[in-house]
Amino acid sequence: MVENPDDKKTIAFVVYPGMTPLDMLGPLTVLDGMATSVPGYRTVVVGETTDPIATDNPLRIAASHTFEEVPSPYALLVPGGAAPTFKALADEKLVGYVRKAAASAELVTSVCTGSLVLGQAGLLEGRRATTHWMFRDLLRAFGAEPVAERWVVDGNVITAAGVSAGIDLALHLVERLAGAEVARTIQFVVEYDPAPPLGPLDWSNPPYKDVKPLLDLTLSEALSGEPALRDKLLAHTGG
Amino acid sequence: MVENPDDKKTIAFVVYPGMTPLDMLGPLTVLDGMATSVPGYRTVVVGETTDPIATDNPLRIAASHTFEEVPSPYALLVPGGAAPTFKALADEKLVGYVRKAAASAELVTSVCTGSLVLGQAGLLEGRRATTHWMFRDLLRAFGAEPVAERWVVDGNVITAAGVSAGIDLALHLVERLAGAEVARTIQFVVEYDPAPPLGPLDWSNPPYKDVKPLLDLTLSEALSGEPALRDKLLAHTGG
Repeated sequence: MVENPDDKKTIAFVVYPGMTPLDMLGPLTVLDGMATSVPGYRTVVVGETTDPIATDNPLRIAASHTFEEVPSPYALLVPGGAAPTFKALADEKLVGYVRKAAASAELVTSVCTGSLVLGQAGLLEGRRATTHWMFRDLLRAFGAEPVAERWVVDGNVITAAGVSAGIDLALHLVERLAGAEVARTIQFVVEYDPAPPLGPLDWSNPPYKDVKPLLDLTLSEALSGEPALRDKLLAHTGG
Repeated sequence: MVENPDDKKTIAFVVYPGMTPLDMLGPLTVLDGMATSVPGYRTVVVGETTDPIATDNPLRIAASHTFEEVPSPYALLVPGGAAPTFKALADEKLVGYVRKAAASAELVTSVCTGSLVLGQAGLLEGRRATTHWMFRDLLRAFGAEPVAERWVVDGNVITAAGVSAGIDLALHLVERLAGAEVARTIQFVVEYDPAPPLGPLDWSNPPYKDVKPLLDLTLSEALSGEPALRDKLLAHTGG
């Protein structure tokens, strides 16, 4: 058991205002479970500040460490969200941290539209990647090839689909870092035995037949102050 | 569209120190999705304080309202956790709030060991209920009949299994409050299309063959200052 945190491999979960906290809480719970069951890992929550920040629901959340305190994590996870995540693409403190931390990280991961932040940091050029199904085409704006899978591995960059896909991604990461037996135990600990009351999603019948109007509106509003970035993304809203 | 929050039905998510935040974030995300898609509902996060509190992982969280500010919610959800939730059973501010709020609530719900808090508040006497699989027998200490299901409805009290079961519970609640179409849309929005990398849980082969030693140790430590409550629960650790 390594007792000195400095000797541990740090798995850093990035937070920013207005994000969807469930994107992070699935993976954080699963990987923190790994960190408490096998030696050598610790989890931290990193943000521009350790003061509470707003999320996209009434809960506020607070990081455990500032970006400056965790310059070189072993692994990085960037969660997503809706309009606030588009705004965050223009936040150079956030994007700059992700770019710099990713340069030395063994694993760079995202959930939902967190992959757009990876894209904005220049990390998806020429890579296969995924994101929330409604926003998938936007990955092309960053030179990525959108893939409709629950999670997508391309080298050391692993991106997950929308929101709840972070749980599946995290169990995959535990299997990779600590083996199937540990992953299986953590799956029992979080009792991940899904039983959606209405069954699995029927991808032949999504709720929005055409997501383009909604995407165009969201992007135009969220990035009204960043016309170049806005237009770059608007060119990939499909339709 | 009801614009005055006071006219809306309030769904209150209870927080307390050391809890497992994923227990709450699944349901909060799903039910907040409902509140933003259909009129008449709002979600709040209630705690003894709105200052940040610790959870069982490095993330700190902050309530949007104090208990005093939300005395009579329409619905209540109590999340669980491990040792800190046992400690919380002796927190009369928390348990007293749950007891009082539940008295006038239309729906009283829990995730994971949150059902033990409902039990301590006297709300499970003679009811069928569930909780995290490792702690299920403890429900008997509160006069409840333990049931091994993903979520259990008994009158207006609905209890869910461990941690991730809160997502399934919440989709059931949305179906009940706003109909299957809204529930289906929110399931797409959170992209809840589970794909556990190791497949579903194999209940014939759980990671702990005998949970009694672990439960006895956890209860003895967490409730060392509350011998009566400790012994009441220790009488139901099975084995």
